[in-house]
Amino acid sequence: MDLDLIQSLAIPGTTKIVLLSADGLGGFPHPDTGRSELETARLPHLDALARRAACGLIRHVGPGITPGSGPGHLGLFGYDPLHYQVGRGVLEALGIDFDLRAGDVAARGNFCTVDAEGRITDRRAGRIPTSRCVELVDRLRRIRLPGVLVFVEPVKEHRFVLVLRGAGLSGRLSETDPQATGTPPLPVHALSPDGEATAARVNQFVREASGLLADAAPANMILLRGFDRLPALPRFPEVFGLRAAAIAAYPMYRGLARLVGMDVLKTGATFPDEVKTLAAHRDAYDFFFLHYKDTDKAGEDGDFPGKVAALERLDADIPGIEALRPDVLVVTGDHASPAVLKGHSWHPVPVLLTGPYAAADAVDRFTERACVAGSLGTLASHHLMPLVMANALRLTKFGA
Amino acid sequence: MDLDLIQSLAIPGTTKIVLLSADGLGGFPHPDTGRSELETARLPHLDALARRAACGLIRHVGPGITPGSGPGHLGLFGYDPLHYQVGRGVLEALGIDFDLRAGDVAARGNFCTVDAEGRITDRRAGRIPTSRCVELVDRLRRIRLPGVLVFVEPVKEHRFVLVLRGAGLSGRLSETDPQATGTPPLPVHALSPDGEATAARVNQFVREASGLLADAAPANMILLRGFDRLPALPRFPEVFGLRAAAIAAYPMYRGLARLVGMDVLKTGATFPDEVKTLAAHRDAYDFFFLHYKDTDKAGEDGDFPGKVAALERLDADIPGIEALRPDVLVVTGDHASPAVLKGHSWHPVPVLLTGPYAAADAVDRFTERACVAGSLGTLASHHLMPLVMANALRLTKFGA
Repeated sequence: MDLDLIQSLAIPGTTKIVLLSADGLGGFPHPDTGRSELETARLPHLDALARRAACGLIRHVGPGITPGSGPGHLGLFGYDPLHYQVGRGVLEALGIDFDLRAGDVAARGNFCTVDAEGRITDRRAGRIPTSRCVELVDRLRRIRLPGVLVFVEPVKEHRFVLVLRGAGLSGRLSETDPQATGTPPLPVHALSPDGEATAARVNQFVREASGLLADAAPANMILLRGFDRLPALPRFPEVFGLRAAAIAAYPMYRGLARLVGMDVLKTGATFPDEVKTLAAHRDAYDFFFLHYKDTDKAGEDGDFPGKVAALERLDADIPGIEALRPDVLVVTGDHASPAVLKGHSWHPVPVLLTGPYAAADAVDRFTERACVAGSLGTLASHHLMPLVMANALRLTKFGA
Repeated sequence: MDLDLIQSLAIPGTTKIVLLSADGLGGFPHPDTGRSELETARLPHLDALARRAACGLIRHVGPGITPGSGPGHLGLFGYDPLHYQVGRGVLEALGIDFDLRAGDVAARGNFCTVDAEGRITDRRAGRIPTSRCVELVDRLRRIRLPGVLVFVEPVKEHRFVLVLRGAGLSGRLSETDPQATGTPPLPVHALSPDGEATAARVNQFVREASGLLADAAPANMILLRGFDRLPALPRFPEVFGLRAAAIAAYPMYRGLARLVGMDVLKTGATFPDEVKTLAAHRDAYDFFFLHYKDTDKAGEDGDFPGKVAALERLDADIPGIEALRPDVLVVTGDHASPAVLKGHSWHPVPVLLTGPYAAADAVDRFTERACVAGSLGTLASHHLMPLVMANALRLTKFGA
């Protein structure tokens, strides 16, 4: 079932859809209690939603595959994450709200330290302060390459992003970071024949950077990795026929939404701010992607009680979303982040879908185990959007 | 999700994995009791495993499709059985522990009886004793073909295996067995243009065999069918990054494991022997494929109480496997063999997966019906290995 088919079936409507992605929502039982974060938290509003929702589990990429945030969200937006792949350089650029364009090539950069012979002595340049990173990035911005626009953007400490913009660039490039000290940075080479010209540009950039940074020890050299070209993705508003808005306090998620053509709404730093933004724009859009970050942060930190608390804070904001009376409200996540694993995991993620035509099933709690018995079953992430569209009465019949 | 992707995500580890395939595990309710073999047997250890495992059902090929032993096991090894097909001639050769090489063409042979006009009067040559088969196979070994090595191996009674080894052979050949008496054997013809040369060799083999067997009535002719070329399969140890060993008392299962590049360990004739072999080699491998045959034998014989007893014997050996403390222990089967059907069937097969990151679900018995409610859901067989790898913490994240 591809996006062309969905686009051919999409019909106009007046219904409102809210897709709430609680980042890293799924968890895993704590060894002491045998209960997961969702099973431990008091979630009166989410449980009440689950009771009148169709529930199930979302599998984002495939059984056993742990999704990154990119594939996790592309799946929720309806894009098969195995078909539409987005690499690390692109995500890093999205993560700083850089306005990437189709065809741009992005890479992750590190300032590093090299000795008099050019051998790396510190791959992170002693983690220079971000203020120093900003100064040195300014130097690198002097570099000009033939036929290519160059963007250099500071990130945090020793990290920066390099973006090249021009016709016919390739992201199929090897990395300069040897992932070891005592050896010089590697030259970039093309991983496919169409990458030769881009590789030559990048090697010129590295040479000039080396000269500009000669007196800047410990940050007297750079390493580049994760080269990637921004893929041209089908545009979400056209595929689904929805005026679509993204509300996310964190830049990477805004970037992912912009990548598929959603409008990115200005919002505050907290989830209650996001809900206010949703209320303010309710009439102007058909579809809202709402992102909640705290669940993932606590999961990645291995902070079980912190994740429980983050879930309870989210639960407290559910009535504010319900008060806006979306026709279809979906709550799920982009991947699991169990505190016991201190990171993303492969476990399927609970999903609930409410709407006038989503029949309640027997699920009465919004937990990993309860949702196993839900009427949605275990659903590939990119199959969720067609189901959402159907529930919003925005898909017509297939075939006569 | 293909094997290239899995290979790109596989990471090294120190975890140990045991995949126990109880052949023909799944069954069907007995008409008198309404309970299946698994529901009838007393399985305290398997039920205890199920209580702390993630459970589900395995579908090996597709809904309604009854798997042979080849596709059944290839699926469990992570190979989509619809994509990686292994034919009957190859399986017959594997079944006698013949060391097939990539590119070999194998066929199943029968000695048969023909009359003075060359018409078949008995397609099985009166089921001559195996000792006679061995003598006649010795005669056939005299045949030499241009540019091709010829192997002829006795099987049982009137059956033998023919293997051709050489460059550019094709397995796309028609059969010589007309599946009827009163008519002569058919000449072989190529089913695709690249098979012409191989067909000519096989026809030469049949002509010479006819001469060599002229005085050997009732086994005075041969029939060949199930021509197949050994496919070059991606190697399991490289795909999954696992030092992999197979422990199987029956040759066909050793052969299937060898086909994908597992080491085949010498073992005894019984399942307790296999468990001893596992214990002896525990440290040398990361992954063990352990095969239990008795369940299938009883099922194929239509012996319901025999299958119940085979399950109870297997259950008694579970503690010996658990004592070796594999990080991930999976119990499932390659297909169902319900006693009431006296053969393989299409019914999904129970699976349980234990490990520190496989949360227990509500399933408290290892039966067909209980596993329906398991958190693994109904899983395509070739999706099991990625899940096993994830649970062994041997797969990294997909995408950033």
